[in-house]
Amino acid sequence: MITLYDCSTAPSPRRARIVLAEKGIAHDTVQVNLARREQMGEAFRAINPRCTVPALRLEDGTVLTDNAAIEAWAEAAVPEPPLFGRSPADKAEIASWHWRVEFEGLQAIAEGFRNGSPAMAGRALSGPSDFEQIPALAQRGVQRTQLFLRTLDDHLRDREFIAAGQFSIADVVAVVTVDFARIVKVKPGPEHPHLLRWREEMGRRPSMSL
Amino acid sequence: MITLYDCSTAPSPRRARIVLAEKGIAHDTVQVNLARREQMGEAFRAINPRCTVPALRLEDGTVLTDNAAIEAWAEAAVPEPPLFGRSPADKAEIASWHWRVEFEGLQAIAEGFRNGSPAMAGRALSGPSDFEQIPALAQRGVQRTQLFLRTLDDHLRDREFIAAGQFSIADVVAVVTVDFARIVKVKPGPEHPHLLRWREEMGRRPSMSL
Repeated sequence: MITLYDCSTAPSPRRARIVLAEKGIAHDTVQVNLARREQMGEAFRAINPRCTVPALRLEDGTVLTDNAAIEAWAEAAVPEPPLFGRSPADKAEIASWHWRVEFEGLQAIAEGFRNGSPAMAGRALSGPSDFEQIPALAQRGVQRTQLFLRTLDDHLRDREFIAAGQFSIADVVAVVTVDFARIVKVKPGPEHPHLLRWREEMGRRPSMSL
Repeated sequence: MITLYDCSTAPSPRRARIVLAEKGIAHDTVQVNLARREQMGEAFRAINPRCTVPALRLEDGTVLTDNAAIEAWAEAAVPEPPLFGRSPADKAEIASWHWRVEFEGLQAIAEGFRNGSPAMAGRALSGPSDFEQIPALAQRGVQRTQLFLRTLDDHLRDREFIAAGQFSIADVVAVVTVDFARIVKVKPGPEHPHLLRWREEMGRRPSMSL
């Protein structure tokens, strides 16, 4: 059986939950309690030495230790429906937005949260090494998050999906990102009508309530 | 004809140069002078509103505006030799290391350089928006770069390639990253024997002198 090491309250494993649901990949779930720093303990380190969730254990025992691996594996193992596009042009557009949502959006929020929240002191980056918080980076993270919501809203003005006119991995990561922005007190509002319309439409997919 | 908007001295367009060479994709090259901030000017903005190189104009006029798009397009348009793997397991391993080299390596160097160099004042992030430098982030970038070289060296102890036992996009981005580390005065040395052996081996590929 495939096992997802998950944390129901965290954005990164939510990406994996949605991908597995969209692909119809059956799996068990093990909750890793991040609030109690269970990901840093010996037991979880033996599963994923990078001390992060999600991790996905495949039937042959291989453990995929990040979303990049899980997403690439899921797309190759279960090609339909494609989340990364079919034609070279569609694949390029989806890859570009996948990257942008991750670097310009999700990472901005993570920087804002991890460098600003007292609960994250000494844990400014995920992973096995400790890094001190940088207050100016927290501030920049919030600013970039606001900028990113404007970018997405503008981009979605005349689009139903983020990229290539189809539901894709870019929509998956963008939903997770937009919802997670709450953690730095940034939320789409009336000034983001296109983003709100897209988010509502995405909400009709059963995977998005995971 | 396909046109690459390039800058011969910068690491990001080097990734695209190597990918195009490995795939044997013929193209013209236009140099964009980053030292003179030509990427911020109206002429280049009309080509790539994100104000970054590389950009790749395809024969139908489509412009791919980042490495993520260029790499995905090249792999789909010219599947052989595959740079992203063949089996689901290989694709997962390559995607994971592609991501790690980019986030843990290339980005650490960029943070070190852009937040520390006087020439980058006000330009701590690439793209159309200006961001002030954060000195603590420069310092963290250098520290993470050193950490990343150790991670790579350790990983390459018993490996010929970064991922999946084959030359892949992970090797391409890792070569660019390791070479670019010079800009923050970090270089592989005798303490990184496995990394040095791999780098020397990679240097035998004609694409790596681009």
